Amino acid sequence: MKWSQSHIFTLRDAPADAEITSHKLLVRGGFIKKLAPGIFTLQHLALRSVRKIEKIIREELDKRGCTEILMPMVQPQELWAETGRLGIEELLKFKNRNGHPFCLGATHEEVVTDIIRKDIKSYRDLPKNLYQIQTKYRDEIRPRFGLMRGREFIMKDAYSFDTDLDTAKKSYDLMYDAYKAIFSRLGFEFRIVEADAGNIGGSVTHEFQVLAESGEDRIIYCNKCEFAANVEVAPNMPVNEPPGPGGEMEEFDTPGLKTISDLAKALNVPEKSLTKTLFYADADGKPVCFMLRGSDEANPVKLKNALGMSAAPLMLTDDEVKALTGASPGSCGPVGLKIPIYLDSALHNRTNFTVGANRDDKHLRNVARGRDFKETKIVDIRMAQVGDQCPRCQKGSFKQARGIEVGHVFLLGTKYSKAMGATFLSQDGSAQPIQMGCYGIGVTRTMQAAVEQSNDKDGIIWPLPIAPFTVHMCVLDFDEATMKVANGLYQELEASGVDVLFDDREERPGVKFKDADLIGMPLRLTIGKRGMEAGELELTQRKTKETIKLPPQQVAAKVMELVKNGR
Amino acid sequence: MKWSQSHIFTLRDAPADAEITSHKLLVRGGFIKKLAPGIFTLQHLALRSVRKIEKIIREELDKRGCTEILMPMVQPQELWAETGRLGIEELLKFKNRNGHPFCLGATHEEVVTDIIRKDIKSYRDLPKNLYQIQTKYRDEIRPRFGLMRGREFIMKDAYSFDTDLDTAKKSYDLMYDAYKAIFSRLGFEFRIVEADAGNIGGSVTHEFQVLAESGEDRIIYCNKCEFAANVEVAPNMPVNEPPGPGGEMEEFDTPGLKTISDLAKALNVPEKSLTKTLFYADADGKPVCFMLRGSDEANPVKLKNALGMSAAPLMLTDDEVKALTGASPGSCGPVGLKIPIYLDSALHNRTNFTVGANRDDKHLRNVARGRDFKETKIVDIRMAQVGDQCPRCQKGSFKQARGIEVGHVFLLGTKYSKAMGATFLSQDGSAQPIQMGCYGIGVTRTMQAAVEQSNDKDGIIWPLPIAPFTVHMCVLDFDEATMKVANGLYQELEASGVDVLFDDREERPGVKFKDADLIGMPLRLTIGKRGMEAGELELTQRKTKETIKLPPQQVAAKVMELVKNGR
Repeated sequence: MKWSQSHIFTLRDAPADAEITSHKLLVRGGFIKKLAPGIFTLQHLALRSVRKIEKIIREELDKRGCTEILMPMVQPQELWAETGRLGIEELLKFKNRNGHPFCLGATHEEVVTDIIRKDIKSYRDLPKNLYQIQTKYRDEIRPRFGLMRGREFIMKDAYSFDTDLDTAKKSYDLMYDAYKAIFSRLGFEFRIVEADAGNIGGSVTHEFQVLAESGEDRIIYCNKCEFAANVEVAPNMPVNEPPGPGGEMEEFDTPGLKTISDLAKALNVPEKSLTKTLFYADADGKPVCFMLRGSDEANPVKLKNALGMSAAPLMLTDDEVKALTGASPGSCGPVGLKIPIYLDSALHNRTNFTVGANRDDKHLRNVARGRDFKETKIVDIRMAQVGDQCPRCQKGSFKQARGIEVGHVFLLGTKYSKAMGATFLSQDGSAQPIQMGCYGIGVTRTMQAAVEQSNDKDGIIWPLPIAPFTVHMCVLDFDEATMKVANGLYQELEASGVDVLFDDREERPGVKFKDADLIGMPLRLTIGKRGMEAGELELTQRKTKETIKLPPQQVAAKVMELVKNGR
Repeated sequence: MKWSQSHIFTLRDAPADAEITSHKLLVRGGFIKKLAPGIFTLQHLALRSVRKIEKIIREELDKRGCTEILMPMVQPQELWAETGRLGIEELLKFKNRNGHPFCLGATHEEVVTDIIRKDIKSYRDLPKNLYQIQTKYRDEIRPRFGLMRGREFIMKDAYSFDTDLDTAKKSYDLMYDAYKAIFSRLGFEFRIVEADAGNIGGSVTHEFQVLAESGEDRIIYCNKCEFAANVEVAPNMPVNEPPGPGGEMEEFDTPGLKTISDLAKALNVPEKSLTKTLFYADADGKPVCFMLRGSDEANPVKLKNALGMSAAPLMLTDDEVKALTGASPGSCGPVGLKIPIYLDSALHNRTNFTVGANRDDKHLRNVARGRDFKETKIVDIRMAQVGDQCPRCQKGSFKQARGIEVGHVFLLGTKYSKAMGATFLSQDGSAQPIQMGCYGIGVTRTMQAAVEQSNDKDGIIWPLPIAPFTVHMCVLDFDEATMKVANGLYQELEASGVDVLFDDREERPGVKFKDADLIGMPLRLTIGKRGMEAGELELTQRKTKETIKLPPQQVAAKVMELVKNGR
């Protein structure tokens, strides 16, 4: 395509609201254009990349027996009422002219389950895996990071339907493999991590995380084995401590020592040898107490799961804590409490505790479990940290990275099929709920993640498989001889299936090279009078900036060779 | 693709709300599935056809220098306020969580003009032609006919931007050619007709109409030349009548004769020799009078244009007519009226009129123009009829057909660019408004139009270029030898680029053949034990039901030959 046709308008400056590199580069390169907060037009270059991503997704899913359909974006609210999800705040709700309540599709579990309950009659009709690639809308309260956390975005969502949990797990594994293949083909450095099922429901679930420093998600992984998890759910091992000294429980003064750090300094002990006591409200609003090592943080997802709640529990206010214990938060402890006490597994064999005395500016030492207080349960509730022992292999230790979640697979079970009456007649003639899975890839987010993972100070470095164009042809002179070579190479490359952006602008070489670096196609081919006279053209790799000179008749073969090698 | 993977569920009966054949067949064949009125899921078969239509559209547009982008579906209402179109009733409006007013994209003139006014600076940046293929939403008060007049639908919309009217007309002509190529390649019998610009604005405009008996639009075309127009706007020639007899104006009794038909019978004259007098309110609400031959109907679009209004004028009520003229509508005429009188061009040289006397049950004969009343203007305001003289070639006469509008091209001029301040710096350094055109194809509607145009009592007959699959392979037996041949042919055809639906169901041949006829792929290949024993397979053309028998090794070549010949 000629530049003059392409509608590319690059900008010198990034918009003020762009916080991360990829957002800045996509706007500056003229890839995306903001219409409203979180709502963007995909200009031609961005759309080309998105289409390449979609094609790879389709190929991998079709190969595995998935069937593409296209569901509506406008959905009746009645369906969401059936599953009890109408209250989700990101769901944009409205009434049409006739006064009927609808919403914009933020996801399609309800619609696809409605299709399936109408179509599927017998076990003979199963398994099925339906997917679509579609524009979705989520009414984010604070959209940011461009397409990363936008309101309107393109998503691939797939749904599997099986007769029983075993075959459902096979469907899940098949999609897991498909995603692995997809993100490998897209050219990403990524990790597959264990994750929390959130309010989609279900039990088994993995996230596909593209590694990038600015990623919103923190990933914990083992330095010895395959284990990786979102820090939200990363499990921890119990920690064995040497037995403490024992002795009589004793109160001592800690005036003004409000934090673990203050106390550790005053007592000259490591923070981890101290104990935090935290107070939350459970699902019924009743207070519960969590105890952790002084050096650990409570993990809200683990707290939620420990209490069997659907959202993370809220901490009690200082006043509520005071009313409950008689002291301010800095001076609280378990002794004398009449509420459930959950002990983090890092404390599972601690015998000697130093804790708040439930009197302001007082602490207790030599507090013995069993004698001075009794825990209700020992659970893993702490946030995993770098250096923690890996619970999978029990040999390695945790490292951490930042990631952008681009894909997510869930084994849903029968949550939706039961709520919506999606059943099939099994071989024994009984009606059974269908076992479901759901599988998402954020397509526009994936495109931006590629930019976030792969760029330098001059601009984007597109991975070859999803580069809008493979070759950026900078034509510097427009005399007959140069144009003949340029047009000839353009046609030769396009005929070989290599897409070329033909920069036909009458601009200085510096402007063209700067734009070429900014929009980041993998290969730049420079054709100018000077090179022509020397019988040489310049082929530059965007990633390494390595330039080779070669005669015009060898260019196409060299490009094909580089493309074949994935550069 | 195997039938078992395809998620096809055919139905015996059409839904009660399906009024036209294509709607019935698409539902019965499992192509589309209603979620809410006017809102459908495209199941896999329908999506395949839509993708083939989209591919042909893209090829023809890209070839002509158009650039694909993707604009948002959720749009800020502010933009629509700028062009004064926020009041359009089909526009679905809502507020987001933050209370900001948005609407669902029913069309994208506002958004694309917003993009252009930000991107385009100089005449050097023009011309441009941006298009997208996207899901749109129009809040139809009474959706019907399946995808034909649905609420949610896929549309291709393109927008051209030029420096002046001449180049804008060239862009228009290029799109006109593209559309002609597209609908030819899609395999349609269609006509290009002159049309009304409606509330999109602009002057030059054509509709692309697929001919079909159930079409919502009436098309008038010439039996001698290329002329064709939507009946809404089909122009008429002045009609020359022989001069009337002359004489004194004379009142006569017409008791109970309320209609032209009654009067013609009573006077024993043809209806066309009589004259209708009709009363409407103009843009300011003031009454105007239109006179037509007794045999003609007033054309609302022509009335609208005659009065320079933006919507068709409303007829006065009987009471208003009585207050104005002193008589009920059946007895009214022009004599003595003090309001503008528009005379249809069929009456341009009529001298002797018989008209109502403006007294109930009285008429006047020998009413002479100029002497007894004076017209304000002679205009073409009648509805064109079969047999009317063609105003283009002036040799042929009108015939009529029914059509489904699948495409529409508009030369918009500067309506939107002026309203939204989309200007460019011209060569003389002055800021000029950009000349625009807009061009739409209803993609899902096009798919359904194909079915409406091409079917028989047994089901759909897909045109080859947009058939979901080219070959429907009915495998009747599952023994090893049959399956080997079936699998071999399946792979051979797919490898040659022929898409095959492999009916692998364990069903009776009758069920399979009936489904094959219903879903209507162009070629049916029957592979069964009996044929295998005879060394012959059956290849049946859906359209003609013609069957040829041939040995397995000749099948692929024969299919390729038929595909090449477009059958």
